[in-house]
Amino acid sequence: MFSDFDSQMMERALDLAARGRFTTSPNPKVGCVITLDGEVVGEGYHQRAGEPHAEVYALRDAGERAAGATAYVTLEPCSHYGRTPPCADALIKAGVSRVVCAMVDPNPDVAGRGIERIRQAGIEVDVGLLQQTAERLNAPFIKLMTTGMPYVQLKLASTLDGRTALANGESKWITGPDARSDVQRFRAQASAVLSTSRTVLDDDPSLNVRWEQLPEPDRQVYDKEKVRQPIRVILDRSNKVTPQAQLFSLPGEIILVNQTQSTTLTGDNVQQIQSSASETGFDLLQLMRSLAKKGINHIWVEAGATLAGALLEANLVDELIVYQAPKLIGEDGRPLLAMRGLTSMADIPEFDLDDVTRIGNDIRLILRQRKH
Amino acid sequence: MFSDFDSQMMERALDLAARGRFTTSPNPKVGCVITLDGEVVGEGYHQRAGEPHAEVYALRDAGERAAGATAYVTLEPCSHYGRTPPCADALIKAGVSRVVCAMVDPNPDVAGRGIERIRQAGIEVDVGLLQQTAERLNAPFIKLMTTGMPYVQLKLASTLDGRTALANGESKWITGPDARSDVQRFRAQASAVLSTSRTVLDDDPSLNVRWEQLPEPDRQVYDKEKVRQPIRVILDRSNKVTPQAQLFSLPGEIILVNQTQSTTLTGDNVQQIQSSASETGFDLLQLMRSLAKKGINHIWVEAGATLAGALLEANLVDELIVYQAPKLIGEDGRPLLAMRGLTSMADIPEFDLDDVTRIGNDIRLILRQRKH
Repeated sequence: MFSDFDSQMMERALDLAARGRFTTSPNPKVGCVITLDGEVVGEGYHQRAGEPHAEVYALRDAGERAAGATAYVTLEPCSHYGRTPPCADALIKAGVSRVVCAMVDPNPDVAGRGIERIRQAGIEVDVGLLQQTAERLNAPFIKLMTTGMPYVQLKLASTLDGRTALANGESKWITGPDARSDVQRFRAQASAVLSTSRTVLDDDPSLNVRWEQLPEPDRQVYDKEKVRQPIRVILDRSNKVTPQAQLFSLPGEIILVNQTQSTTLTGDNVQQIQSSASETGFDLLQLMRSLAKKGINHIWVEAGATLAGALLEANLVDELIVYQAPKLIGEDGRPLLAMRGLTSMADIPEFDLDDVTRIGNDIRLILRQRKH
Repeated sequence: MFSDFDSQMMERALDLAARGRFTTSPNPKVGCVITLDGEVVGEGYHQRAGEPHAEVYALRDAGERAAGATAYVTLEPCSHYGRTPPCADALIKAGVSRVVCAMVDPNPDVAGRGIERIRQAGIEVDVGLLQQTAERLNAPFIKLMTTGMPYVQLKLASTLDGRTALANGESKWITGPDARSDVQRFRAQASAVLSTSRTVLDDDPSLNVRWEQLPEPDRQVYDKEKVRQPIRVILDRSNKVTPQAQLFSLPGEIILVNQTQSTTLTGDNVQQIQSSASETGFDLLQLMRSLAKKGINHIWVEAGATLAGALLEANLVDELIVYQAPKLIGEDGRPLLAMRGLTSMADIPEFDLDDVTRIGNDIRLILRQRKH
């Protein structure tokens, strides 16, 4: 069904799609390549919500040469009127003779209807080329669409022996500058950055995206003037955060999660939501559901051992991003995870190793939740 | 001074040298390639102590074509009568016209005299090609020769959060079968495997080399009939080990380190040495010096958190081999290192990352002591 040329073109479309990684959230990243007689005649990718879809840019680029062409799209073309007219119709109207999709759209408003519509117009549609790569690219979008839950990436940073600080709390420079720059990339791709009042009070972090600190290759595809700030979600059960925290004065929205409304944190960029909690912390499953209802499909967690342990215990982590410094602290150093009471090796959380990379003098591991 | 061809030939000689990795200990690994008119005419490598050196095999292989040839040797040819006559003389006698060495021999009995002898015979000698690789290959030999201390590789195995077992002690299968097979390789390359009475009593390990469990590529260069068993060195301060431990019934020598001679452990393959100790353990620096005096230049440590922590605190670890399983245990799991009381980030041991490799579903990191 698929030739080598098809695969090459779909890879090109996936590369184009990935260019939207910092800006499309919460929309999926989509790329489109149009070819005629073995030659690329049009290319495009989705840039941000409210702007045209990938197919529209590629058809514009191809112009009249779209007639009789093949369109490679990383996601099924849409069939519904959203903020833009349906792409399925645009492809039909342009007269393409074949459409190749990497995957069916998991959005229940589309879910095969786009493909159906194109086929009914007498156009050949082939589905499933490089599907796994396409699914990986839009894991957060797919997870929200299929489960109503956000995709959660948990950042961990420690020494080789799993320590985050000395016994006395000293922790400066556990990982190096390259790892910190790499963290900026992950933040910039997320819909929201999740943290806690304790982290805010201890470290006074910005938790925002600083374009200048992104790695060079990312700055090249990401326009500085169009930086999208992920929503910062701060868990603050007992209203401990004060308006002096620097994150309130930096650009970007903030969602404060608490049990009772705070009267002191009332900035224009601050929303408050109340969520149920016990003495040990918020009901994280319920919290994730509420965030998903706000369209947040991709959460990047930067917090301490308590939230990290609680998310793992609640089985809410899809992906671990672990930065390890080539250092050793020893048994009285602060532990990476507050997570207790495992009594059998069969119960311990296991992950599949997806990638190992050196980042400066540190190591970055990417692991995904093992599917059972 | 060196051409691309020279580099290629020296790489070939280094590859040959590495074939002796399981057998030459405590001798260095040495390879030799002889070329005439741009063509390889002889090759050889050192196989084990008491057998001919690399140059001898290569000269035999080259025969009369050694006259006027270039000899590439990974280590300076010896100039002294040991168990074999000096290789410098053999090269002179064979009539080679040029000798290229990767490095000078750190052995004070050689230390430039081999090179000098060849030069005095009117033969061109060039030194220093791929020197770093050659030094890395024989780090244990070089360390003993230059410092009187053995080269120590410490094996660590843990979860991503630096835990070796659950709070209740359960630890089966932290790492997978591929990692265990990889450990066999490191054991097989060492002069000695160092462990403790606690490990022997808890796990009853063999601590020997099981040829069948070596990775396939290693079995191909290592003759099953000629397996060399590293000496097993067991720290047993209070004579707790009993003759029932399986390691006593397996082939290979054992050195028991204690404070007073044991009367029950008297097998033919068991030596006992007394070493000074305090209440917290042996004086490890002194112990390492005594082992070095026995010709042990390469020690592979497989033990628990206590010895690992003590070796690191005493700054006796040259290389860390860290196996990480993609699992998480949490803060009440057993810690990787018993090492305490660090009060400043400036004091924590740092290493340089040398290699990161996936071993099955686990990760192996190799790190070397940072030189100051």
